[in-house]
Amino acid sequence: MQIDEEVAKLLELKAQLGDDGKTQFVLKTPKGTRDYNPKQMAIREKVFNTIIRCFKRHGAETIDTPVFELKETLTGKYGEDSKLIYDLKDQGGELLSLRYDLTVPFARYLAMNKITNIKRYHIAKVYRRDNPAMTRGRYREFYQCDFDIAGQYDAMIPDAECLKIVHEILNELDLGDFRIKVNDRRILDGMFAVCGVPDDKFRTICSTVDKLDKMSWEDVKKEMVNEKGLSEEAADQIGEYVSMQGGMDLAERLLQDHKMSQSKQACAGLSDIKLLFKYLQLFHVTDKVVFDLSLARGLDYYTGVIYEAVLTQAEESVSVGSVAGGGRYDGLVGMFDPKGRRVPCVGVSIGIERIFSIMEQKAEASPQKVRTTEVQIMVASAQKNLLEERLQLISELWNAGIKAELMYKKNPKLLSQLQYCEEAGIPLVAILGEQELKDGVVKLRVVATREEVDISRADLISEIKRRTEPVYLMGSSEPCTEFLLQSTTEQVEQEP
Amino acid sequence: MQIDEEVAKLLELKAQLGDDGKTQFVLKTPKGTRDYNPKQMAIREKVFNTIIRCFKRHGAETIDTPVFELKETLTGKYGEDSKLIYDLKDQGGELLSLRYDLTVPFARYLAMNKITNIKRYHIAKVYRRDNPAMTRGRYREFYQCDFDIAGQYDAMIPDAECLKIVHEILNELDLGDFRIKVNDRRILDGMFAVCGVPDDKFRTICSTVDKLDKMSWEDVKKEMVNEKGLSEEAADQIGEYVSMQGGMDLAERLLQDHKMSQSKQACAGLSDIKLLFKYLQLFHVTDKVVFDLSLARGLDYYTGVIYEAVLTQAEESVSVGSVAGGGRYDGLVGMFDPKGRRVPCVGVSIGIERIFSIMEQKAEASPQKVRTTEVQIMVASAQKNLLEERLQLISELWNAGIKAELMYKKNPKLLSQLQYCEEAGIPLVAILGEQELKDGVVKLRVVATREEVDISRADLISEIKRRTEPVYLMGSSEPCTEFLLQSTTEQVEQEP
Repeated sequence: MQIDEEVAKLLELKAQLGDDGKTQFVLKTPKGTRDYNPKQMAIREKVFNTIIRCFKRHGAETIDTPVFELKETLTGKYGEDSKLIYDLKDQGGELLSLRYDLTVPFARYLAMNKITNIKRYHIAKVYRRDNPAMTRGRYREFYQCDFDIAGQYDAMIPDAECLKIVHEILNELDLGDFRIKVNDRRILDGMFAVCGVPDDKFRTICSTVDKLDKMSWEDVKKEMVNEKGLSEEAADQIGEYVSMQGGMDLAERLLQDHKMSQSKQACAGLSDIKLLFKYLQLFHVTDKVVFDLSLARGLDYYTGVIYEAVLTQAEESVSVGSVAGGGRYDGLVGMFDPKGRRVPCVGVSIGIERIFSIMEQKAEASPQKVRTTEVQIMVASAQKNLLEERLQLISELWNAGIKAELMYKKNPKLLSQLQYCEEAGIPLVAILGEQELKDGVVKLRVVATREEVDISRADLISEIKRRTEPVYLMGSSEPCTEFLLQSTTEQVEQEP
Repeated sequence: MQIDEEVAKLLELKAQLGDDGKTQFVLKTPKGTRDYNPKQMAIREKVFNTIIRCFKRHGAETIDTPVFELKETLTGKYGEDSKLIYDLKDQGGELLSLRYDLTVPFARYLAMNKITNIKRYHIAKVYRRDNPAMTRGRYREFYQCDFDIAGQYDAMIPDAECLKIVHEILNELDLGDFRIKVNDRRILDGMFAVCGVPDDKFRTICSTVDKLDKMSWEDVKKEMVNEKGLSEEAADQIGEYVSMQGGMDLAERLLQDHKMSQSKQACAGLSDIKLLFKYLQLFHVTDKVVFDLSLARGLDYYTGVIYEAVLTQAEESVSVGSVAGGGRYDGLVGMFDPKGRRVPCVGVSIGIERIFSIMEQKAEASPQKVRTTEVQIMVASAQKNLLEERLQLISELWNAGIKAELMYKKNPKLLSQLQYCEEAGIPLVAILGEQELKDGVVKLRVVATREEVDISRADLISEIKRRTEPVYLMGSSEPCTEFLLQSTTEQVEQEP
């Protein structure tokens, strides 16, 4: 056994050495990161388009911030999670760290530019030195898609819009049924107070409650009592509350609850939940929203309503956990302002990597081919020595805005040009031959049906457009990216 | 004087301390980086759309790679510039560096996935610890927009396409007149050889020649002779060649040149330049392309044709230097392959930050307002206590795909709602009042003309679309983003 292991180690070492004995480097991406291949990029683009379209529909502007911040900008914002921040090496100059989320850079941006009102989205990568679980969409480099509303406004109006946005996006992405859990930091704190949790244990008990979606109540209680030193009585009282789920009715009931109503904080939170549900009813989204007292999102900076969306059919495939989350953080911007001026904020972050994982699995399971380009036509030749004619024609097409390719060979075989079209899903071929050149025409071939028709050079561009471009109905603003991702076979079959 | 300085220092120190004496951190982005505000993002989006549309027109797929690579992946690829690479701190685990360009990650990706044929674009940020010159668009964090063709193909066909792409993009961005300089690494090396430059001085003399766009020939010659120890005679011979500019004719003349023709390498390069110009003629782009023997791009990895685009009218505003560049690098992928298999590549990188700088200046100089959102309508109320009705209506609009906003106040004043529309360039307002609700209508107001008309609730959505959405002509695939960025006044005035 031991000899086997030694041999294996030596073989591995040998593999790392090239034929000439030179050390070969490892060809890989850093731990917890990945490349996106063209197919994954096509799916990513589709998801981003849906999300951006929704953010724009709600009137958001967009900003961008650097991938790294001064180290001190991130200090003291993430509690225990600070150890997961990537620092840059001190190469002289400022001490820098990679951004951990988009919320802290947003708050820094607001304070730095003295902005008190903005509705913005920001889609960018963030970095966490966490234990990656890549099959479940957990990476060390991953995208966040954030939408936030900053400003002093009337209660729950922007908050309700954030939930409407989550509802719209998850609906449109068609990921199956989902639930949006809602709670309020003030209700949690009030609940802890009336259950007899000492003030200094609020945060740690809160993070134990947060584990209820992965652990049974018995185990959560054990952790509270045995590890965190809470009295069994207090734990049991918490246990009763955190099992409660409902809607506006539950908020009303708890406002009457003799214990809960003793906490002013809890009452403020409960009144806001009531108001929130009233607005959500007007948005017709209450079917997916549930007031859940066990929801206790980790981040320190939340001050009011918090929410999290989960897919409820996800057990079938891979469990992906929450796909969106957010809440109100009225104090964060003030941490950056020299005079501590508060800018109330509420926002939502879409967990895009988990959504990618699901979409990728769906695409792989589907018989439909994902196209990675939008090429409409290949410029081909049926005979030798026609490279110059192909170059001239393709240049005309490019100049007319047609998406076109040609093979980079002087004399490619017609068959290999046609095969390339089949593989890449290119719907049309413009075939040039001696006869066509003489007649001033191009032979237009429909790849799927093998139909061929001579088109005069003058009509070629409009004919290509007619046959391949999505028809925009008057007044429709959505370019049909869906269409472009679909297998071309279908497109062509729809032709008269 | 000294006292004044001391006082200033103390005041500065005091400013850094809060009222409570706590040290305040500095509110800034790291040196050489910047935030993009919504206006800059609108411009950036427009430029990206133009570039991506061009890359897609040429049938490119897209990929993405992590922002950092294993340190050893970048080692030995950038020569002297390696000192500009950002390293991450060693926090246990792998040693990582931020990517310095997109070409090396691309080559790593090809070798790692054993890809021998691909046409891809990649738009992402890269990082260089260089001396920033932000007014001229030189940052430490900046975008690259790369298009590359990898594969064993017939000579100069993909190379010519790269130049066609530069031509299309610079034309479409409308940055004024431009020139694309072309040369070949083999012509440079052959020229150095026949001029008597010792082999081991090729690279260093080459980097001196590269300075000819910023320095006079006299100064370049001085550097060659005094600093790099080249003989005066050799320098003079180089001086004669590097002053030459032309087209296909110059390549032909140099092929007959008694000295140049002694170098096989130079002849191979000159024949390729001839072929390149033949293809560029078929693309009708030779008016902008010039064969320039003084072009000597720095990067070590180029093996064949090289090119660089410069704006020729840039002196008027700020000098931005080259706005695109690239060339052939047939050896780079082989450096990553354990067996050294070569994958010939040619590509081009668009210098997007410099283009942003110019576009920003143009936008600032223009009377036309840059819109940062695409909102079509504001849902407003003329009386108090209509928040619920506004929420219900805006929800209907969002669900119908209309881009709509409302003010997050229970009872906003009509005037402030209208003012918000003027400022944000929102073209329409849907006004709700008691009377309108009773009549089942909405008062639709055109912000620019103040025209008001009652529209029934049933017709509202189609009326908004008719009045605000760009009309797509059948067969037109370009969504009119231009239109959306324009001042809305114009849009509205075009209405019948």
